[in-house]
Amino acid sequence: MAPGLVEPPRYNEVPSVGIKTLPKINALNYTPGRNVVEKHSEPYEHDDLRGRFPDVHWPPLTEVSYNDKGHLGDPQFKNLLGSASDVFDYNPKIGTEIHGIDLATLTDAQKNDLARLIATRGVVFFRNQKNFDIDAQLKLGSYFGTLHSHATTCVPKREGLENVHVVYTGEDSPDLRALFTPTFLWHSDVTYEIQPPSYTSLKVLTGPPRGGGGDTLWSSQYAAYDMLSTPMQKYLEGLTAIHSADLQAQGSRDMGRTVRREPVTNEHPLIRTNPVTGWKSLFYCPGFVTKIVGIPKTESDHIISYLNEIVATSPELHARFQWNKDDVAFWDNRVCNHSASYGFMPHRRHAVRVCCQAEKPYLDPNSKSQEDDLAERYGLRKATKDGSGVVNYND
Amino acid sequence: MAPGLVEPPRYNEVPSVGIKTLPKINALNYTPGRNVVEKHSEPYEHDDLRGRFPDVHWPPLTEVSYNDKGHLGDPQFKNLLGSASDVFDYNPKIGTEIHGIDLATLTDAQKNDLARLIATRGVVFFRNQKNFDIDAQLKLGSYFGTLHSHATTCVPKREGLENVHVVYTGEDSPDLRALFTPTFLWHSDVTYEIQPPSYTSLKVLTGPPRGGGGDTLWSSQYAAYDMLSTPMQKYLEGLTAIHSADLQAQGSRDMGRTVRREPVTNEHPLIRTNPVTGWKSLFYCPGFVTKIVGIPKTESDHIISYLNEIVATSPELHARFQWNKDDVAFWDNRVCNHSASYGFMPHRRHAVRVCCQAEKPYLDPNSKSQEDDLAERYGLRKATKDGSGVVNYND
Amino acid sequence: MAPGLVEPPRYNEVPSVGIKTLPKINALNYTPGRNVVEKHSEPYEHDDLRGRFPDVHWPPLTEVSYNDKGHLGDPQFKNLLGSASDVFDYNPKIGTEIHGIDLATLTDAQKNDLARLIATRGVVFFRNQKNFDIDAQLKLGSYFGTLHSHATTCVPKREGLENVHVVYTGEDSPDLRALFTPTFLWHSDVTYEIQPPSYTSLKVLTGPPRGGGGDTLWSSQYAAYDMLSTPMQKYLEGLTAIHSADLQAQGSRDMGRTVRREPVTNEHPLIRTNPVTGWKSLFYCPGFVTKIVGIPKTESDHIISYLNEIVATSPELHARFQWNKDDVAFWDNRVCNHSASYGFMPHRRHAVRVCCQAEKPYLDPNSKSQEDDLAERYGLRKATKDGSGVVNYND
Amino acid sequence: MAPGLVEPPRYNEVPSVGIKTLPKINALNYTPGRNVVEKHSEPYEHDDLRGRFPDVHWPPLTEVSYNDKGHLGDPQFKNLLGSASDVFDYNPKIGTEIHGIDLATLTDAQKNDLARLIATRGVVFFRNQKNFDIDAQLKLGSYFGTLHSHATTCVPKREGLENVHVVYTGEDSPDLRALFTPTFLWHSDVTYEIQPPSYTSLKVLTGPPRGGGGDTLWSSQYAAYDMLSTPMQKYLEGLTAIHSADLQAQGSRDMGRTVRREPVTNEHPLIRTNPVTGWKSLFYCPGFVTKIVGIPKTESDHIISYLNEIVATSPELHARFQWNKDDVAFWDNRVCNHSASYGFMPHRRHAVRVCCQAEKPYLDPNSKSQEDDLAERYGLRKATKDGSGVVNYND
Repeated sequence: MAPGLVEPPRYNEVPSVGIKTLPKINALNYTPGRNVVEKHSEPYEHDDLRGRFPDVHWPPLTEVSYNDKGHLGDPQFKNLLGSASDVFDYNPKIGTEIHGIDLATLTDAQKNDLARLIATRGVVFFRNQKNFDIDAQLKLGSYFGTLHSHATTCVPKREGLENVHVVYTGEDSPDLRALFTPTFLWHSDVTYEIQPPSYTSLKVLTGPPRGGGGDTLWSSQYAAYDMLSTPMQKYLEGLTAIHSADLQAQGSRDMGRTVRREPVTNEHPLIRTNPVTGWKSLFYCPGFVTKIVGIPKTESDHIISYLNEIVATSPELHARFQWNKDDVAFWDNRVCNHSASYGFMPHRRHAVRVCCQAEKPYLDPNSKSQEDDLAERYGLRKATKDGSGVVNYND
Repeated sequence: MAPGLVEPPRYNEVPSVGIKTLPKINALNYTPGRNVVEKHSEPYEHDDLRGRFPDVHWPPLTEVSYNDKGHLGDPQFKNLLGSASDVFDYNPKIGTEIHGIDLATLTDAQKNDLARLIATRGVVFFRNQKNFDIDAQLKLGSYFGTLHSHATTCVPKREGLENVHVVYTGEDSPDLRALFTPTFLWHSDVTYEIQPPSYTSLKVLTGPPRGGGGDTLWSSQYAAYDMLSTPMQKYLEGLTAIHSADLQAQGSRDMGRTVRREPVTNEHPLIRTNPVTGWKSLFYCPGFVTKIVGIPKTESDHIISYLNEIVATSPELHARFQWNKDDVAFWDNRVCNHSASYGFMPHRRHAVRVCCQAEKPYLDPNSKSQEDDLAERYGLRKATKDGSGVVNYND
Repeated sequence: MAPGLVEPPRYNEVPSVGIKTLPKINALNYTPGRNVVEKHSEPYEHDDLRGRFPDVHWPPLTEVSYNDKGHLGDPQFKNLLGSASDVFDYNPKIGTEIHGIDLATLTDAQKNDLARLIATRGVVFFRNQKNFDIDAQLKLGSYFGTLHSHATTCVPKREGLENVHVVYTGEDSPDLRALFTPTFLWHSDVTYEIQPPSYTSLKVLTGPPRGGGGDTLWSSQYAAYDMLSTPMQKYLEGLTAIHSADLQAQGSRDMGRTVRREPVTNEHPLIRTNPVTGWKSLFYCPGFVTKIVGIPKTESDHIISYLNEIVATSPELHARFQWNKDDVAFWDNRVCNHSASYGFMPHRRHAVRVCCQAEKPYLDPNSKSQEDDLAERYGLRKATKDGSGVVNYND
Repeated sequence: MAPGLVEPPRYNEVPSVGIKTLPKINALNYTPGRNVVEKHSEPYEHDDLRGRFPDVHWPPLTEVSYNDKGHLGDPQFKNLLGSASDVFDYNPKIGTEIHGIDLATLTDAQKNDLARLIATRGVVFFRNQKNFDIDAQLKLGSYFGTLHSHATTCVPKREGLENVHVVYTGEDSPDLRALFTPTFLWHSDVTYEIQPPSYTSLKVLTGPPRGGGGDTLWSSQYAAYDMLSTPMQKYLEGLTAIHSADLQAQGSRDMGRTVRREPVTNEHPLIRTNPVTGWKSLFYCPGFVTKIVGIPKTESDHIISYLNEIVATSPELHARFQWNKDDVAFWDNRVCNHSASYGFMPHRRHAVRVCCQAEKPYLDPNSKSQEDDLAERYGLRKATKDGSGVVNYND
């Protein structure tokens, strides 16, 4: 059988709108590495979504039921893509961008397709979602499951939005890159919770213009699983890791802020099954995993170092997204890590995130690897996993 | 003084062509992670540029004179950008894409501007350069300096093109990612030469369609220098590194191929000055640096590990480019590392590279850091370099 | 000038007592890797020195004056060694064993010599100090300076001995090696204090017999400084590190124990001068240093990793001591790290430690490296520091 | 059942001779860190055993039969220990010193016991073996198996001793520690051979006096296996590693020396069974293992890094030996790594090594771990392998 999809041809002759539909530049005004800084008048239009740190205390999270809407999605995503003007992947492993869809007006069938597509592709991008305001974002999030409220990060000034996580960097904010290693910044959101989130949307309300920095990267944990040797997959399938909220809570306390829910520590399997795709993924988070359980600390440190390197340095696993105002990224935290980038000073950057709690992570031993499943389905040659051969490195 | 460029506004109202001007997809034909595989009839249109490994032997490289054309470029790149329909950065540190320019028909003034822009931005991208055939590519390369011939990689079948480096992956080629660490794959071309290249063009003749994988990433060494603490900058400014062609030559010999020029080892400063911008850059290459000179091996290993992590894991330093057929990337090997990505199987991928030898690397102690220079010029707040503060990590 | 000491010959013909003066074994009772386990009747003779964790709270430490008695010591240690029956080094960099001295009956002149010798050699060992009971140990410690009380570790049951740190592992204690990396276990005592200790004595009251495990290792920080390249020495001479008691306090709290003094964090120079020898030493502690100040976190992590490797893996820096009952090690915490070893189960191991607070760490830029000073004094060839040469590794 | 050996008591009342039976020092001649440098007249008494690099070429090694004499040894080593005046372990995991035995006059029954004891304890030390000259050393080596000739290191000047490996450092030799990481220096001899050696003797003919440096350390690979978690043991039991002579040969060629036998590369199991003890051991060598087979390079690098840390930094695995003239160490290269230490300048150091080729490494899946076997045999509590608990680090 021929590898890949050979026909029918999937492109027609109508030119699409590109990734970045910004107004045209006058090229002679170009200054390398510099952009016009948007002046924001006060009152700022999204002032109600600026952050505050309320001095409140919430009880511990308790178990909630979760029925993944992705199960109801069409295998070809017909309801969603039937309305799309364009759809394309960022690369074979992760990331898809859809044009022509308004997230504020999805039918339930489209929502189900969306869930299924996100679970399949890790992250899906939508440009210019002006109608998708915070209320619509919360409503869509609630469709997928019980919303999560973050214990430490800021919530909108507007009352009643404690389920919204606010990201805000002001024009005068210093570049804090020195405080972190880039590897540590890779994370999946709040994996320390007993039911870490699945479908998560982030909308950028205000941000640097094209080329101004502040990209976000996602790293596929399906594909990370496939980077492991078969014996290492087996090794990790028997192990769990400790995910801890302690450092995050400590940082907040050191800044004089209230930690609204006592920090928790949960133990999750290192390899989990995604209920929608049936694929195994690594479930490892550089930012929150502190130790692997049941093995010596020295061994844990080295395995963590290995997983860090896979997650952070493999370009095949990554989708990199350049934000414009009103763009939305929608990802499945169960199967991706993501990482912010610094260096967008002196631009204001403001975004809001909504996510729902998913099932407790589990491993179905009969589930499959993404790469194996697709290789079988499309007759692809499997990647070799033996790195001991001749290195004929041809730069 | 206000930070950044506040006016005049640089955008007009004419919609630009986006990054990816591919024909529109019929969204209902979409298959996640899979693309139509182009069928190539034989004779393949670029058969003359397919590779061969001639059994010839060349003398060692000798010193050649080099006058950087970038010195002649206009500070605002007026000659080049005056003809452009669009220009935009990928992020503040690295990468710029220009639309509306035909690389095959540049005036000398435009070539000089191009050199200056490449030296400034590290890498510049041009889409859809159908006219820029291999002869035009060689001619433009020769304008910038004496062309380099690679000692081991394949050259085109067509005689007389030994200055061209061929990149070719067939439809049946296995995915070799397991042979390398992603970090090791980061490199600047042939840095082991006595005069490693500056301006380098790579044109993709045939490749995977949109989303099919095979992106290339560049990592700025100007920005890498700025990631170092001031004491570490001083430490490295006093040191040199050994760049070696031995492993590359050994790999070729193990494959039964002729090494056309005996492998060399050269010692270069770890911090060098770019003669065009006057900026200091790290001059470190994960793929070819074997040791740092004058310090114990243990110390050398750890400093190398540190530099590897900066180069490979800092998203602020990276530009990621998704190739279409006939796209050209033009970079300055003195100030960038780059890295291929795997995972585009089963697509054919074919590209040709031309580069010229630059000056012998040197450090002018009075040269400046890029970040310091721009901070001063635009009144920007400097990034802190102290990582010992409170980590208030807000995922 | 001839290198080294050529005359007068320093050995006479009288056989010395060896390192281990244990009663002779009947070789036929030998069992590989196993020893007779001493049966301890109750009441155990050192029951009053068994540990307890009193629920008390102490105020923060305040600055105390410190006059190093080593300044008063004889340069040839005549007062101390005049009474010794033997003295020998463990290796040129660290560790000296003295026979024939009773630590309980030293004159002040001998005490001063002892301080000077400890500051010079890092650690000095005395066998079979039966007379040197806890009261004598405290008295000698007090001669050297204000005694330190530990905030978390156990103190003797006997009241009034809060200045004594008790080390106790029972016959049924599990082997806890898996909880730590061996590298992390290297430490200098309580370096997080504002005035970390200098002269520190540890006496083993009960322990495994010869070959039963539980050795202690010391690692010279004078010699660690000399492992660094000259540029790295300069780099570190400008930097400080954060030493933190937080993890130790947290561990105690997690075990339900009282932390008797709030955990502190202090910033100390990474290179300090020993006031007695005038030698520079590294002042780095794998167990308590959390960050280097003033440099990015990524850089800090790699420098810490480098220093860890030097401290933990260089055999030239190490003295390894096999304890017998009533042996005493006396070290200068300013210039040594030390590390316990596991694997002595099922033997009881019981020891008591006393230490005094020293000066606040400082760097005198005019002080010398130990290796440079001795090379000059004895006409020795200096060790090369360039690791970039040919590796002719002859196993 | 009571843990350990409780009776009969194994010590009698006769004082033994200690580890170091050097003539007594006049303590007042003591100079810290410095020793009298022995003046060697010419002709030097061991001149015939000084090294040379003959320009000869040998054919590849071919398979030889091997019958391990250890199988014939008495389980209590009665023949050997019946003549011993003392025997004691260095620690429970590795290293035993025997007094009162002359290696030059062993009976075959004693030789068999010796083999068995070496295989059990990893390394056995004998002091002051004046009678055990090179001919006796070769004869004893031959008793154990076919002697190995090294392809690159120097052989004695005296003809006919090509089976002897000479270690020689002159008074004027520079300290080369900067060329290596201490971790890389850990190795098991010539593991790249198809039948790497078992019983190996090294005799020091001339060396630094007591305290002069130049100690050798051994690291148990039985105990290294027991440092791994059970899942990691399983993981490694399925894998092999490449052991390569290439770097060693390249170093010799770079020095202008003849490589007498073409360098080989062999693949050995990472966990092997010792045929005498039936214990599993790690079979990993920091100095010669280049890659693990069948797993990606990134994974291989991290597993190698983990094994390096276990071998090099765990004090429980190490025996450290201070040499005197005429001392002999006898080890089993199958179950130990060892490492030299530097820093003995300006002393001459001269030693000769003899070893025999052993069986091809194999893993018997039914063999046992040393720790499990002893725990069972002596009713010991097993060490925990879970490092995820509370770290109550009590310095």
